[in-house]
Amino acid sequence: MARPTPLSGFPEWLPAGRTVEQYVLDALRRTFELHGFTGIETRAVEPLDQLLRKGETSKEVYVLHRLQEEAPDPSGAGDASSGPGRGSGADTDDRRLGLHFDLTVPFARYVLENAGHLVFPFRRYQIQKVWRGERPQDGRFREFVQADIDVVGMGELPYHYEVELPLVIAEAFGSLAAIGVPPVRILVNNRKVAEGFYRGLGLGDVAGVLRGIDKLDKIGPVAVAALLVAESGATAGQAAACLELAAISGPDAGVVDRVRELAARHQVTSELLETGLVELGALMTAAVARAPGVVVADLRIARGLDYYTGSVYETVLVGHEQLGSICSGGRYDTLASDGANTYPGVGLSIGVSRLVSRLLGADLVRASRSVPSAVVVAVTSEDTRAVSDRIAAALRVRGIPVEVAPSAAKFGKQIKYADRRGVPFVWFPGSATSNAADGTPVPAEPDQVKDIRSGDQVEADAATWEPPAEDLWPRVQAVGGP
Amino acid sequence: MARPTPLSGFPEWLPAGRTVEQYVLDALRRTFELHGFTGIETRAVEPLDQLLRKGETSKEVYVLHRLQEEAPDPSGAGDASSGPGRGSGADTDDRRLGLHFDLTVPFARYVLENAGHLVFPFRRYQIQKVWRGERPQDGRFREFVQADIDVVGMGELPYHYEVELPLVIAEAFGSLAAIGVPPVRILVNNRKVAEGFYRGLGLGDVAGVLRGIDKLDKIGPVAVAALLVAESGATAGQAAACLELAAISGPDAGVVDRVRELAARHQVTSELLETGLVELGALMTAAVARAPGVVVADLRIARGLDYYTGSVYETVLVGHEQLGSICSGGRYDTLASDGANTYPGVGLSIGVSRLVSRLLGADLVRASRSVPSAVVVAVTSEDTRAVSDRIAAALRVRGIPVEVAPSAAKFGKQIKYADRRGVPFVWFPGSATSNAADGTPVPAEPDQVKDIRSGDQVEADAATWEPPAEDLWPRVQAVGGP
Repeated sequence: MARPTPLSGFPEWLPAGRTVEQYVLDALRRTFELHGFTGIETRAVEPLDQLLRKGETSKEVYVLHRLQEEAPDPSGAGDASSGPGRGSGADTDDRRLGLHFDLTVPFARYVLENAGHLVFPFRRYQIQKVWRGERPQDGRFREFVQADIDVVGMGELPYHYEVELPLVIAEAFGSLAAIGVPPVRILVNNRKVAEGFYRGLGLGDVAGVLRGIDKLDKIGPVAVAALLVAESGATAGQAAACLELAAISGPDAGVVDRVRELAARHQVTSELLETGLVELGALMTAAVARAPGVVVADLRIARGLDYYTGSVYETVLVGHEQLGSICSGGRYDTLASDGANTYPGVGLSIGVSRLVSRLLGADLVRASRSVPSAVVVAVTSEDTRAVSDRIAAALRVRGIPVEVAPSAAKFGKQIKYADRRGVPFVWFPGSATSNAADGTPVPAEPDQVKDIRSGDQVEADAATWEPPAEDLWPRVQAVGGP
Repeated sequence: MARPTPLSGFPEWLPAGRTVEQYVLDALRRTFELHGFTGIETRAVEPLDQLLRKGETSKEVYVLHRLQEEAPDPSGAGDASSGPGRGSGADTDDRRLGLHFDLTVPFARYVLENAGHLVFPFRRYQIQKVWRGERPQDGRFREFVQADIDVVGMGELPYHYEVELPLVIAEAFGSLAAIGVPPVRILVNNRKVAEGFYRGLGLGDVAGVLRGIDKLDKIGPVAVAALLVAESGATAGQAAACLELAAISGPDAGVVDRVRELAARHQVTSELLETGLVELGALMTAAVARAPGVVVADLRIARGLDYYTGSVYETVLVGHEQLGSICSGGRYDTLASDGANTYPGVGLSIGVSRLVSRLLGADLVRASRSVPSAVVVAVTSEDTRAVSDRIAAALRVRGIPVEVAPSAAKFGKQIKYADRRGVPFVWFPGSATSNAADGTPVPAEPDQVKDIRSGDQVEADAATWEPPAEDLWPRVQAVGGP
């Protein structure tokens, strides 16, 4: 077999990179659990009709077929209804499944399917791979890991969850600062503010205006204004007012006053706008107190405002804004509905693969070694491998990760085995206690342990020795850090 | 949307069940890492030609197609080479991908692809979902989680790894005994013993004999003997000798003597047999010392002996033998080969979903609560929600999982919120310290915390209070256990 090559868009990490990714996943999970989010996992597949409910993502879906459905049965025998070609297999369960492209669609389905067994408001986190058949680019993959948190209510969901969730995310990223993950900026907006303002101005094509505003970064304000006039029936003055709104941003509740001032200047009065401003103000006030400097109100954020109904969030890695959002989400009044009940929710989704690929690709974060082992126990001879195995077991029982050398090679070679993996300690078995002919115990030659970085070698007892705490597990740390 | 129904073969757990599964996964990972196995994760997809190298699994593979490849472009425009129908898309990267059906094929590919960046022997664990389009049955799924450990060498791999790996598995399952997972029995055999014995008897159709022996459980010894005579050219005496070998089993190296005695009785001499017996003896001797009662030599085990080249392992859950093997594996002299190098390996794969579905389905193991939270902080009024948020933050910073009540309902209702989730403690904010008109601090009414199981309520300070250690996180425990 020739040496295989990577598949574009399907990232994989070498062991040291996976150690970084695992650290990130563990840290996210810990923050989510500290905030009372329950972990769930859904199957990777959903019925295709569920996946295609939102038309625009349809081209991204990977559809599954069982291989035996693909070709006519060469024997000519078998199930008579199982003819050749797609979709004609007898196994109807199989025919219309696709891989999920996010964790929201499966979560909504899970909530409906299990509503009778869940207690609401239901707080869940979910960390899984998703798949999209998009053209791969930097930070955009076909298979990638997302880490989502959502709170979903039955019938109602108070606004305070829209304040809480981005602050949980801020704390999650904050817990990663110690390993060299750059700070994040969580940009927030509120659908009610935008819609209330546009309608108050007299613009009814809210979705059209939002689509235009979403193009600001790409085509600039002049072209967006022309678009609003041409496609959303805005006057030049209305278009200018929309651009003024989009230009408002700031790190605290002061943005609310600026929007009110703008609205007053344009004689805009709107209950919806006022509701949105109260919400946005509450979020900014809490954010200033609990995550100072992280959350920024940015009235230009329009992505997702077509289906989010309240707050909307995007998150950039400071200094890596070109990577795009690494955590997005918002409030949806109808995450799911089964006729009898409606389930409103608010949630955010972290693009873990996008984040980790940047951490590794830009060499921001590294693991101190590529294996868990803190110690390699040397083997004096293959006949006494059991002695080394017992030493390893005695260390492990006290929580120290250990492996035993692969062969009873010269100690220099065994040290090299540890060194190539970044394992800091090599343990040399002493000789076992024996008894002289008259039964008197002969003192054993004690075990020794060598720190192969410093060369220091000391006597040690596997029942009591401990490595320094920072050497116990691989350290994941900022490149150039301590 | 109507209430969705589960997809057969694609298991999902409610939050409490997922808590059990997550506990199992964490425990396995910890054991693997204590033994120096590095975690890796591979993409879920492999090129179809790689997946189909072993013909017999071909019917199980799920093949992927991007949805846009499925139908002609309705606009008639687009890439001229992208016509209708499967396999004619322009995006050749996509066309021949399938979901992996185990973790061995992707691991072998990963080793070849990254050989220059890995150090050998390479010890890795890998915990991921796999997919097989099989007919679902009890304990047999279409999507399920496997947890694999393997050691792979470059060019050579000493036998002692065949001793070590099942003992790591024994320890991994041993770590689950505390939560009520039944004990396991790891059945071992050795290809060299079987092949050496058959060849020594004069039977050259080793694969045929193994296929026959593999049917012992299903059709019984008389029918197997007839099969060996009819299909593998055995005499009645040779067939009887094969059955005698298959009948040998035992918990220690005594089985080796019994095989030697049998071989002598049939005038079988074989270097291969002797090599196999030395290996099997070494494994059993180590197993008796390090995992007493767990490992059983069983010369009837034949599954996988067609491609394993040394030790082979199967594992049953004691009292649940009908579930089938929950952990299988063996030694393969050629896990992978790239022409220049051959990579021998030994590994085992735990069927996590099969195990967990039994633990939950038979109600053997339960989680003490369905959410991580140890504490719900009550909210006195929505105006003072920030007070409750601060208390929660003070508890979390010391590692206590906490959530804040969803609304400032009557305390009885807030207690019920906690109770329905199994959260043991509810925290009631006191009143903040204030200053009298002359600046003298007025003593605050202190916070209180209630154990809602016992009803005990005591004064508490969020900066120092700790729940009992056993209440900090959800306990995963044997049903009927302490």
